Amino acid sequence: MLLEATDLIPRSEVRLILACETFQHTGSFKFRAAYQLARNSPHSHIIAASSGNFGQALALACRAFNKRCTVVMPDTSAQVKVNAVRAQGANVELINVQLKSRNDRVEELAAEDPDAYIASAFDDPWVIAGNATLGAEILKACPDVETIVAPIGGGGLTSGLVMAVREDNRDVRVIAAEPALGNDASLSFRSGRLVSNPEEPKTIADGARTLSLGKRNWEILRAHDGLSEVIEVSEEAIRHAVRMLFLKINLKVEPTGALAVAAVMTHSEQFMSGGTVCAVVSGGNVDPSVYAEIITGS
Amino acid sequence: MLLEATDLIPRSEVRLILACETFQHTGSFKFRAAYQLARNSPHSHIIAASSGNFGQALALACRAFNKRCTVVMPDTSAQVKVNAVRAQGANVELINVQLKSRNDRVEELAAEDPDAYIASAFDDPWVIAGNATLGAEILKACPDVETIVAPIGGGGLTSGLVMAVREDNRDVRVIAAEPALGNDASLSFRSGRLVSNPEEPKTIADGARTLSLGKRNWEILRAHDGLSEVIEVSEEAIRHAVRMLFLKINLKVEPTGALAVAAVMTHSEQFMSGGTVCAVVSGGNVDPSVYAEIITGS
Repeated sequence: MLLEATDLIPRSEVRLILACETFQHTGSFKFRAAYQLARNSPHSHIIAASSGNFGQALALACRAFNKRCTVVMPDTSAQVKVNAVRAQGANVELINVQLKSRNDRVEELAAEDPDAYIASAFDDPWVIAGNATLGAEILKACPDVETIVAPIGGGGLTSGLVMAVREDNRDVRVIAAEPALGNDASLSFRSGRLVSNPEEPKTIADGARTLSLGKRNWEILRAHDGLSEVIEVSEEAIRHAVRMLFLKINLKVEPTGALAVAAVMTHSEQFMSGGTVCAVVSGGNVDPSVYAEIITGS
Repeated sequence: MLLEATDLIPRSEVRLILACETFQHTGSFKFRAAYQLARNSPHSHIIAASSGNFGQALALACRAFNKRCTVVMPDTSAQVKVNAVRAQGANVELINVQLKSRNDRVEELAAEDPDAYIASAFDDPWVIAGNATLGAEILKACPDVETIVAPIGGGGLTSGLVMAVREDNRDVRVIAAEPALGNDASLSFRSGRLVSNPEEPKTIADGARTLSLGKRNWEILRAHDGLSEVIEVSEEAIRHAVRMLFLKINLKVEPTGALAVAAVMTHSEQFMSGGTVCAVVSGGNVDPSVYAEIITGS
């Protein structure tokens, strides 16, 4: 769903359009990737590690295509998130991440079922193809779009957007918005080599708490027709964007979903030349207590 | 914008569609009425009393048609609401309602400018015509809709919906959802005569804090092809609906905007026969502190 949001950048000549994935199935863009995976994979069982939107999306997509789904989650995950995955009929494997990493548990489960497919939440051709459907929709609905800004964590979303722009042979820039607290994509982009965060970044944007870009995504993003730029966004700018989307647009977004809007609001001089900018609002799932604290500024 | 929301009533056979007016200009359905008023009135100055959505909508609509706009508001109104009306270029008249009623001040201002048009927020032919455009959109986008449920305060919205159904000659029921704390419409409907609340009802649904239905609306709503029913909704059901729309649909709504959804959720047995029900989510403008308290259940 596209929403006009030019009010958010009052002193700019830019027309700002939001591509809202908050009303997507399971509340985030992740369903696009999960749907492609569940539809196209020849395997009858899909295993993934995810404590967030991807797990829930994969569970629903597997149910739609009548496949088994196992989601590995830390045993510290919020009960409401565990329940949401189970409610879609998936098997949840809770692990103590102090004793065993999520990936190790995924490997174990895969060894037990050699026919299973191990799905990365971001570094997978079907995931990229799924995310490209969002790019295609934006390009079709916004013929005059000049720039698409989207959050970056593992790089699956921006890779999909870059692929969609290539496919359409359009002259549209794709810009990534990343929390400054976990600026591995920005460092990678500037140095020309894949850089990792030393540890999981403690940003409020939990969808961007990745250690590094996926290798497959990095190859797509670093190309000359890949990403145009990575904008680093402060925690305060993320919170401010969540609050402004609440106040001025009546849009409920999760912190990760506000990254692109925050990048446009804090770097609006960069977009001053005018034209149409599309900011991807990637998801809306946020705990009530976290959201309440952000909108009241407490 | 229409959103599928069947998840909200899991044990029902009903298909629930939300007609969301939260992304309308100025964040509520009131802009439809304000637009018709500002476009069609031959007067160059429009005066209205409103501390809520209608004032802001009228200010924007008058600006669009280059008309003067005066909005009378209590001097206890939240500064953010006063600022929002002023930001649209309207003149705000703050009054002490202990000393003078809003309507008295409107009359005074009208006496000073005999060419001005005094607009009721709900009891006005253009207001009803404006609200009818929402009904026409629902009927067009949802050809199989059997029931439309909408909040009721002064009755302008439901009157517009009834007019749209009549105009289209369709067999669609219009049901009103009213706070039980201010059940004048329910009492009027049951007794067959226009009943008023003894005082402004202290419901959290501030858009329904009206003393009675408008006389014009009452004549439309009481007709044999008028309202089918008025459902009374408790304060707890309103809060619950706001919370569920946040959690399950990622939709930010104001308490008044949740009235119709609350009516469907609490009376779902009534809609059990199946079919498609459209609930009007009339607006999204709510103070962050009120919203935070509702979604956290504190």
